[in-house]
Amino acid sequence: MTDVALDAPAVIRTKRDGGTLSDAAIDWIIGAYTDGRVADEQMSALLMAIVWRGLDPGEIARWTAAMLASGERMDFGDLPTVDKHSTGGVGDKITLPLLPVVVACGGVVPQASGRGLGHTGGTLDKLESIVGFTANLSNQRVRAQLGDVGAAIFAAGELAPADAKLYALRDITATVESLPLIASSVMSKKLAEGAGALVLDVKVGSGAFMKSEEQSRELAHTMVELGFAHGVPTRALLTDMNCPLGGTVGNALEVAESLEVLAGGGPADVVELTVRLAAEMLELAGINGRDPEQALRDGTAMDRFRRLVAAQGGDLSQPLPAGRHSDTVAAGRGGTMGNIDAKAVGMAAWRLGAGRSRRGERVQPGAGIRIHRRPGDLVTAGEVLFTLYTDTPERFTAARAELEGAWSVGDTPPPTRPLIIDRIAP
Amino acid sequence: MTDVALDAPAVIRTKRDGGTLSDAAIDWIIGAYTDGRVADEQMSALLMAIVWRGLDPGEIARWTAAMLASGERMDFGDLPTVDKHSTGGVGDKITLPLLPVVVACGGVVPQASGRGLGHTGGTLDKLESIVGFTANLSNQRVRAQLGDVGAAIFAAGELAPADAKLYALRDITATVESLPLIASSVMSKKLAEGAGALVLDVKVGSGAFMKSEEQSRELAHTMVELGFAHGVPTRALLTDMNCPLGGTVGNALEVAESLEVLAGGGPADVVELTVRLAAEMLELAGINGRDPEQALRDGTAMDRFRRLVAAQGGDLSQPLPAGRHSDTVAAGRGGTMGNIDAKAVGMAAWRLGAGRSRRGERVQPGAGIRIHRRPGDLVTAGEVLFTLYTDTPERFTAARAELEGAWSVGDTPPPTRPLIIDRIAP
Repeated sequence: MTDVALDAPAVIRTKRDGGTLSDAAIDWIIGAYTDGRVADEQMSALLMAIVWRGLDPGEIARWTAAMLASGERMDFGDLPTVDKHSTGGVGDKITLPLLPVVVACGGVVPQASGRGLGHTGGTLDKLESIVGFTANLSNQRVRAQLGDVGAAIFAAGELAPADAKLYALRDITATVESLPLIASSVMSKKLAEGAGALVLDVKVGSGAFMKSEEQSRELAHTMVELGFAHGVPTRALLTDMNCPLGGTVGNALEVAESLEVLAGGGPADVVELTVRLAAEMLELAGINGRDPEQALRDGTAMDRFRRLVAAQGGDLSQPLPAGRHSDTVAAGRGGTMGNIDAKAVGMAAWRLGAGRSRRGERVQPGAGIRIHRRPGDLVTAGEVLFTLYTDTPERFTAARAELEGAWSVGDTPPPTRPLIIDRIAP
Repeated sequence: MTDVALDAPAVIRTKRDGGTLSDAAIDWIIGAYTDGRVADEQMSALLMAIVWRGLDPGEIARWTAAMLASGERMDFGDLPTVDKHSTGGVGDKITLPLLPVVVACGGVVPQASGRGLGHTGGTLDKLESIVGFTANLSNQRVRAQLGDVGAAIFAAGELAPADAKLYALRDITATVESLPLIASSVMSKKLAEGAGALVLDVKVGSGAFMKSEEQSRELAHTMVELGFAHGVPTRALLTDMNCPLGGTVGNALEVAESLEVLAGGGPADVVELTVRLAAEMLELAGINGRDPEQALRDGTAMDRFRRLVAAQGGDLSQPLPAGRHSDTVAAGRGGTMGNIDAKAVGMAAWRLGAGRSRRGERVQPGAGIRIHRRPGDLVTAGEVLFTLYTDTPERFTAARAELEGAWSVGDTPPPTRPLIIDRIAP
């Protein structure tokens, strides 16, 4: 294989016509794309053919391995490393209390993380609302910090460069929503970061990328199998994302709520998911007899969080940013709060400035939404249900429009849904 | 619509999900792609989505109109202009005798033409084997030449620049084989060249782009409707391309065979198709009572061809180039010649150097194949059936391999197929 103009079209044609890509073809096209011998316009045509035709399990495994091989795979030797990845949701601040809980119980967490795009938030955006916090850590500094404070949260830049390039391309070519492309993107980054075990939080519902439970389940199975194929014990929880997690959506607002959880309080759903994911991570890391809830109650998790933030330059003694303007949405009648649509709340927070339309855009750290009543809560007429925050008040109209129809007050409580739907092991 | 990063993905997503592109979306994306606001990688993802989902008749019409609007549409006023376009075949030199026949009968032919790619030949490549011939004519020179000699054959460069850019992109992204993309590409160029009427020669069979008669028929109908929608009376013939046309495949070889036809001789199938296409063109141009066969017999077509070639710098007094090396394929037994596979002969000629692998490559004008026996001819054992020509004898092995299995000698004649399968009018 020596010539792009001859070979890339042949690879694209194979997938376009519903065929199977050989290992050699996958290795070649990922390598040649990473170093620029295959052009963006050729790769995007192949990506659309993959959205159309899919990849079979063998192709997904090889595609992931080829992306992993495009950069360094970190290795922390005998440390009891374990990480968590969430497929993205609204109000999903779980990483913030979870990592210190796991560290407090003896785990070590190297977490390559990303920024948010569209209606789902990103962990790095949340943490960067803390004055001074940086996620631009060299691999060397990640190693040192794992020894010192037991965790590091860092931008995935150097890991799986093929994925970084593909991810940017998928974003502008409408080729994001593809199970094999999502699974291989997540797993190539997570395998490269060097964690010895991995727990996946795969979301189901309106606020998730995958809308149906069936698709989310297939995504979870695919990623669990990819982990095991690369020697990394992996497990997934299927969790509900029809309603936002907790009572806040927006970067600084979610940091503040995470601090409440670390102080032993906070919303029940955030605590439940944190404790459950921590238990799964500790078990996979081979750590027994430690109680995640205890770490929240006795302050050790809070201590580990402060050490982690300080190690990365963050100053929690400075006040968190707050939106300069606020607006409220009140109940028109009394009754029982119905479901609150996660996607709509995520879109509203995005409209307020909490998210970005394009990679590289700045977010407003203080923008977002406080949700005062949860589904099933009793509500009185005129009571404030949502408070909206932004630095740019002209955004309120669009945000209020997104919330329209996303919630209701009725006479009966909505059906309750379990937060944790299933647990997927190989 | 102000922002590429926001809008191109939305257009791609609509087609990816099987939706219909609005007129505004089509106008915007073709315009923005032509002037560089939509990137190649976005357009190639959209093209693959179109290969997947297709375009409905309304979308095809608008797509074609948008490509036509990307450049100048020529207009020759009251001249009785008419052109022919072939969807490409093996040994298809019909344009060479056809244009002078039509001119001799009073028609005027502005022909924007292309170079060959892969196993099908291009009219410009054939004519450029004549010493001095150039197809790089300005629009102004085309106008002047139509007045002086009644025809001009020119590279389509300035016409439909959106199509020129898309055509190059499709070639490297495996998005050539799509009925709506083929139809809109042909018709945007042909409508831009300004002919008042158009006859299409749509090929069916192994040597054609469309393999099934059903697909060729649909392509013909689509293009005929596009012509009428833009005020250009259009008609199509469905013609057989299972066997090469005539007895030669290759650039200079086909020019020599065309000169035989213009001298009143030549192979029966080339004469039949030339005369039939000329009759269709003259009828559409409103020219009555002229006999195309007479123009071949009495030398007026030959005279018009010489004038056309001379007007474009060609010198027919110079010998045509010939391959410096030749090789033969002989019959192993006596009997009746079976079918000769057009695709295989086209590939063999390409291997000999008559075609190119990549745009911009030089072709060998003298390379190609002479076919000594036609299907149904009686053959004696040891008789030479094919002569191969090239300047680079190391190419013989690959060319002979392509011919392997492409022909046979048997005891009974092959079933005869009509050359002209159907005539498609709106």
